[in-house]
Amino acid sequence: MLVSTTVLLLSLAPSCLSIWPIPRSLDLGDQILKLSDSFDITFGFASPPQDLLDAATRTRNNIRSDQLGRLIVGRGSSDSDLFGTASALSNLVLDLKNNDSAARPIKVEAVAALSVRDEAYSLSIPADGSPGTVTANTTLGLLRGLSTFEQLWYTFEGIIYTSYAPLNIFNDSPAYPYRGVMIDTARNFFQVSDIKRTLDAMYLVKSNTFHWHITDSQSWPIQILEFPELARAGAYSTNQSYTPNDIQDVVTYAAERGIDVLMEIDTPGHTSIVGASHPEYVACFLSDWITFAGEPPAGQLRITNMTVANFTANVLGAIAKTLPSTLFSTGGDELDMPCYAADEATQKTLKETGKTLFDALDDFTATTHGALHALGKTTVVWEEMVLEYNTTLRNDTIIMVWISSNDAAAVVEKGFRIVHAPSDYFYLDCGAGGWIGNNPTGNSWCDPFKTWQQAYTFNPLANISSDQAHLVLGGEQLLWTESMRSRNDRGKP
Amino acid sequence: MLVSTTVLLLSLAPSCLSIWPIPRSLDLGDQILKLSDSFDITFGFASPPQDLLDAATRTRNNIRSDQLGRLIVGRGSSDSDLFGTASALSNLVLDLKNNDSAARPIKVEAVAALSVRDEAYSLSIPADGSPGTVTANTTLGLLRGLSTFEQLWYTFEGIIYTSYAPLNIFNDSPAYPYRGVMIDTARNFFQVSDIKRTLDAMYLVKSNTFHWHITDSQSWPIQILEFPELARAGAYSTNQSYTPNDIQDVVTYAAERGIDVLMEIDTPGHTSIVGASHPEYVACFLSDWITFAGEPPAGQLRITNMTVANFTANVLGAIAKTLPSTLFSTGGDELDMPCYAADEATQKTLKETGKTLFDALDDFTATTHGALHALGKTTVVWEEMVLEYNTTLRNDTIIMVWISSNDAAAVVEKGFRIVHAPSDYFYLDCGAGGWIGNNPTGNSWCDPFKTWQQAYTFNPLANISSDQAHLVLGGEQLLWTESMRSRNDRGKP
Repeated sequence: MLVSTTVLLLSLAPSCLSIWPIPRSLDLGDQILKLSDSFDITFGFASPPQDLLDAATRTRNNIRSDQLGRLIVGRGSSDSDLFGTASALSNLVLDLKNNDSAARPIKVEAVAALSVRDEAYSLSIPADGSPGTVTANTTLGLLRGLSTFEQLWYTFEGIIYTSYAPLNIFNDSPAYPYRGVMIDTARNFFQVSDIKRTLDAMYLVKSNTFHWHITDSQSWPIQILEFPELARAGAYSTNQSYTPNDIQDVVTYAAERGIDVLMEIDTPGHTSIVGASHPEYVACFLSDWITFAGEPPAGQLRITNMTVANFTANVLGAIAKTLPSTLFSTGGDELDMPCYAADEATQKTLKETGKTLFDALDDFTATTHGALHALGKTTVVWEEMVLEYNTTLRNDTIIMVWISSNDAAAVVEKGFRIVHAPSDYFYLDCGAGGWIGNNPTGNSWCDPFKTWQQAYTFNPLANISSDQAHLVLGGEQLLWTESMRSRNDRGKP
Repeated sequence: MLVSTTVLLLSLAPSCLSIWPIPRSLDLGDQILKLSDSFDITFGFASPPQDLLDAATRTRNNIRSDQLGRLIVGRGSSDSDLFGTASALSNLVLDLKNNDSAARPIKVEAVAALSVRDEAYSLSIPADGSPGTVTANTTLGLLRGLSTFEQLWYTFEGIIYTSYAPLNIFNDSPAYPYRGVMIDTARNFFQVSDIKRTLDAMYLVKSNTFHWHITDSQSWPIQILEFPELARAGAYSTNQSYTPNDIQDVVTYAAERGIDVLMEIDTPGHTSIVGASHPEYVACFLSDWITFAGEPPAGQLRITNMTVANFTANVLGAIAKTLPSTLFSTGGDELDMPCYAADEATQKTLKETGKTLFDALDDFTATTHGALHALGKTTVVWEEMVLEYNTTLRNDTIIMVWISSNDAAAVVEKGFRIVHAPSDYFYLDCGAGGWIGNNPTGNSWCDPFKTWQQAYTFNPLANISSDQAHLVLGGEQLLWTESMRSRNDRGKP
């Protein structure tokens, strides 16, 4: 009987179900349950951490203020006949399965290594008004239960109600440990408030990683205490850079919402802006970009120069040591080979040492990754490091596959863990035409627009065998910002 | 000497020339000329009409307020050295070539038949500060000269100047008589203020026709005195409909800016909304749209029913008689054949009369076009009337080619005049994915986005012989609004 009910409801689900992403197990009733005016969220264990208390308060407030109606013709009018006889929920109890140990704050659980992070929860809402419960092993799991709970409620003519009671979700947990959103804050600067707005939305859909592509050739918006010259010369303006406090503000705000911040300082390519303060570190600095870069401005770090490698390692370390995440990305995409070929300093060193450019890249990477490993970080790089440059990398390095979804299998074949970031499925900025102007039709290499339907047809395990499936950590959507900014309009910033 | 100067300057033009569209003849100097604080626009003939006086005032005000800088690195900094020694222009004289007859208002000249509309003008700006002149045969030509004049001026550190003096444009006139913008105000309603904002932009680039696709299956936003039920039942709301005063306001505002309003009441397809007040006139009214329409809602006029034909003719006539334009469009695209095949009333009449559906369409069109011809209107239709339905049309009917640019030659081959409205070049709403959801990738039939580069590579005479070239009246860009509205963002309307 339970099985047939589940099947029936899931078959109806496309027209009205508001729970997203869909839980692994979901038993939905079809009774109306109102939310009592005195509804409260309480705790079945002692001393809940402050960020869980805050999350409970936000949940209560959001349900009262969002005023969302059922997405069906007539909104809640067909439900309202039953409001008079429906029970009301007065209490949701959050409980930890293991009450013995002190509960750790969400912000600690949210940045644990992917292999041990525990987001599982169970949620039960009786139809008769008796207390609902969320149970989990961790405060992070309880947070995930809260985000599901928040999605259950509609408002119609002042009444807050769900039409899914009784509801039981048993041991929901993510299909993949890494579910992310990347924002490029270098091509266009994003205010902290815009980032927080995005983190709020990520929380609602249980996205758990904010990949912060914070620097690129166009600007260096991160202020680093030990290297103030980088932002001073490289930010678009003082108002368009992140102070150490801004960074901590974003990181904490994210972690309290169950989101880890994977920061990326893209190196050794995409670093023209370093030349604004250290021109001697950058090959092809501001040279003709048509010849020496994929887009203006040209310039990338001189990887053959040990001073540059040590400088880069120190910069990465100075940032990484301030961040709680176990992950840090050094980038590694789109090295411009004609630039290094034309750079006299690079060629001179290669000749003197008898090394190839890729040997030099190995040395450079060993230095930069070494600094991060010393801080206990797991390094993350773009796919070219594996598929094009054959760079020596530690086995636990995480590879982001962006050029094409077809490249994922080849990276997995080499034994690396991957994050899917495919331009053909997950790039949010494609489709409005190119901005460089080198295409006669005005379209860009990644046109057309990647719709949500396109994203939803993505198969994370395409061409990946079942014994390699554990190497697929998840995926992320990406917003590159050469022609995008924090708002979807053309008004003033 | 003159020739080589012209060639030189045109070769430099892409980097800085602000005159758009480019005049037929253009002799540009490279001297700085300032605009005097006492600059005024005066008239070389008696009794300029009020709308020309108003246009002169707007031009003066716009030049002072728009504060546009030169689109080069450093803006006007390289020009500013010469400000001290440059002359200043104190006067622009507008003059009619034939002073004998009284000048007609712009709003009269702007709605004259395309064959006699005269937009030509000459513009001369000496470098020494002596008066500039615009000469033309008509006040409409003088208006075009004003729009070119307005484009000459930059502002840098409070100084308004041009860097093109002396400038001579001799007898500039449009390459094509019809240069339009279409807006669909039925799928999404546009406020009058939004339409006026668009008309302002059209004026600046000498676009001369606002094609107003005012109704469609989704809504009927035009209030007609004789048929109040149509908007009462068919507008999204009272606030989302145009009163007769609104229509006259838009038409007058447009005409004063040299823009004719071509109104379209799309028939007999795209008329589901008529069923909201006259369900008996509409076949397949609100039937399953997947079967009976290209998009929801289903429904189109019963063309075999003479009552419906007469009603439609009366509606068109009631609107058309209030409009000064010589043009009126009856639409005629995308008839849904399965709908008529399944409609019992339609099939019954066809059987009784022994006519085919296309015979019936001929009769319907004769009735509706007859009503418009009686008002002196030239009718405009979409290409299917010629290429798919083989409808009997008067020879002077203007055909809009939208399905593909490749269809233009076939229409011209039949001897009709055309307006290019090709979905593959000029549709502004393509590229953000489809909204109907019947494409697995989520893209739409007209993806990708049509960039300005794509529009600029359009060849209006492709596959059209030189002796047929006179049949090409011009072209228009089109904004269909199923997924578009008056602003390029996602905020509240």
